[in-house]
Amino acid sequence: MKLTEAQIAEIEVEGYLFLPEVFTPAEVAVLSAEVPGIFAQEREEVWREKDGKAVRTAFAAQTYNEAFARLGRHPRLVEPVEQILGGPVYMHQFKINGKEAFDGDVWQWHQDYGTWSRDDLMPEARAMNIAMFLDEVTAFNGALMYIPRSHKHGVIEAGHDQLTTSYPLWTLDRATVTRLAEEGGIVAPTGPPGSLVLFHANLVHASPGNISPFRRTIVYLSLCHVDNHIRRFKRPAWIAHRDFTPIQCLPDDCLLEMAGAAVS
Amino acid sequence: MKLTEAQIAEIEVEGYLFLPEVFTPAEVAVLSAEVPGIFAQEREEVWREKDGKAVRTAFAAQTYNEAFARLGRHPRLVEPVEQILGGPVYMHQFKINGKEAFDGDVWQWHQDYGTWSRDDLMPEARAMNIAMFLDEVTAFNGALMYIPRSHKHGVIEAGHDQLTTSYPLWTLDRATVTRLAEEGGIVAPTGPPGSLVLFHANLVHASPGNISPFRRTIVYLSLCHVDNHIRRFKRPAWIAHRDFTPIQCLPDDCLLEMAGAAVS
Repeated sequence: MKLTEAQIAEIEVEGYLFLPEVFTPAEVAVLSAEVPGIFAQEREEVWREKDGKAVRTAFAAQTYNEAFARLGRHPRLVEPVEQILGGPVYMHQFKINGKEAFDGDVWQWHQDYGTWSRDDLMPEARAMNIAMFLDEVTAFNGALMYIPRSHKHGVIEAGHDQLTTSYPLWTLDRATVTRLAEEGGIVAPTGPPGSLVLFHANLVHASPGNISPFRRTIVYLSLCHVDNHIRRFKRPAWIAHRDFTPIQCLPDDCLLEMAGAAVS
Repeated sequence: MKLTEAQIAEIEVEGYLFLPEVFTPAEVAVLSAEVPGIFAQEREEVWREKDGKAVRTAFAAQTYNEAFARLGRHPRLVEPVEQILGGPVYMHQFKINGKEAFDGDVWQWHQDYGTWSRDDLMPEARAMNIAMFLDEVTAFNGALMYIPRSHKHGVIEAGHDQLTTSYPLWTLDRATVTRLAEEGGIVAPTGPPGSLVLFHANLVHASPGNISPFRRTIVYLSLCHVDNHIRRFKRPAWIAHRDFTPIQCLPDDCLLEMAGAAVS
């Protein structure tokens, strides 16, 4: 999958790009079928909300689950990012964010590269997120809110919030968020399972709590140019990976192949 | 302002009706200008979020503020409800809900008549809410979520939730909310200041927290047919009013008149 010049220009200007229904329902089903088993595991990679029950995020499933291992090497996710970053990439972070029905908590306003820079000493913002919806994302179940063009401000001053949610995060102050949103507005792409959002590592974003009866699972690959690998190993390796080997993509039908295997 | 037969049928079937931009910006401005002064008051009618600061809801402002007193007798709010309920109405409850930027907390899934019935012994659901937006309501700042057609189920079993937020509420269990939303879906009308939502006293609704930098103030008039007045005075009179006198509407320009007074 190659992005067009117009799409690349859109990411450059707005900081994000929404690509609806890139994966088919059959491909999504292969992944979704694995999520309950992953979320049920009591392991350090599976991080729960403050209630100690609902899964907030499951890290590094690509290291222990075959379907997500394939997703982590899927050309429809990896190649667009290679194209934008101009070279080979490695997996800096991989997470399945739960945002469970009724219980999914907020993610405060932040920039991902703010954390990668401060905690992991990643040299530059030559890294990107590509998000894949495993559920339909609606206006009701905790769609991510992005502030368009906010990535143009570089790394913005932030404070380390260890109180609001169960997961510590470098978050922006209210005056800054207000100013950026007054300038750029807020967008929250919604759409069917299998849709993607690419977004710049410095794009300011947040997501609200989910009090709807519908869960909202999204997988995030944070891909970094291999030359730009992190310099400090402060956080656990399952949060900020230390294997800087360029990702070798699998064939485009690598997920469908598993669907075939399951039914045969 | 008279509702059409089609509009009345829509409320009957769906349980709600959205009426965009019924009040002009000049009329809204008269009311909005009063809100900071009301919210700043330390009085029992002004109820704050768990943080003790952000205003969750201000009750009964029509009893001590001239602009809101006029709104409580405005024909564009009162007459449509009289039309639906088929007779004179009194003011059962009047509130300005803050849902402040960054701090506005959730309102859990509930039916208003569930509370009026259980706490106030209001005989029947011959009462209605009419909500007026004082700010633009968007997908980001805590728009109310309604479950269409859920009002057809009558009063649904509920539990008294005194923990989740600062305000005790009779709330529905998760299985019920899920079932109703799978049947009826979820809608969340959004629009400019001055827009209205009429909704049935038994319509199941909730609103999410607001982590956006934009506040979302909505005024709610809960109007009850005079024959259907409450029978028990358990809650304070500033929450569940005890004056069952039929509302006498003011002229249609009653708010504009104040705008004129302010600038003259």
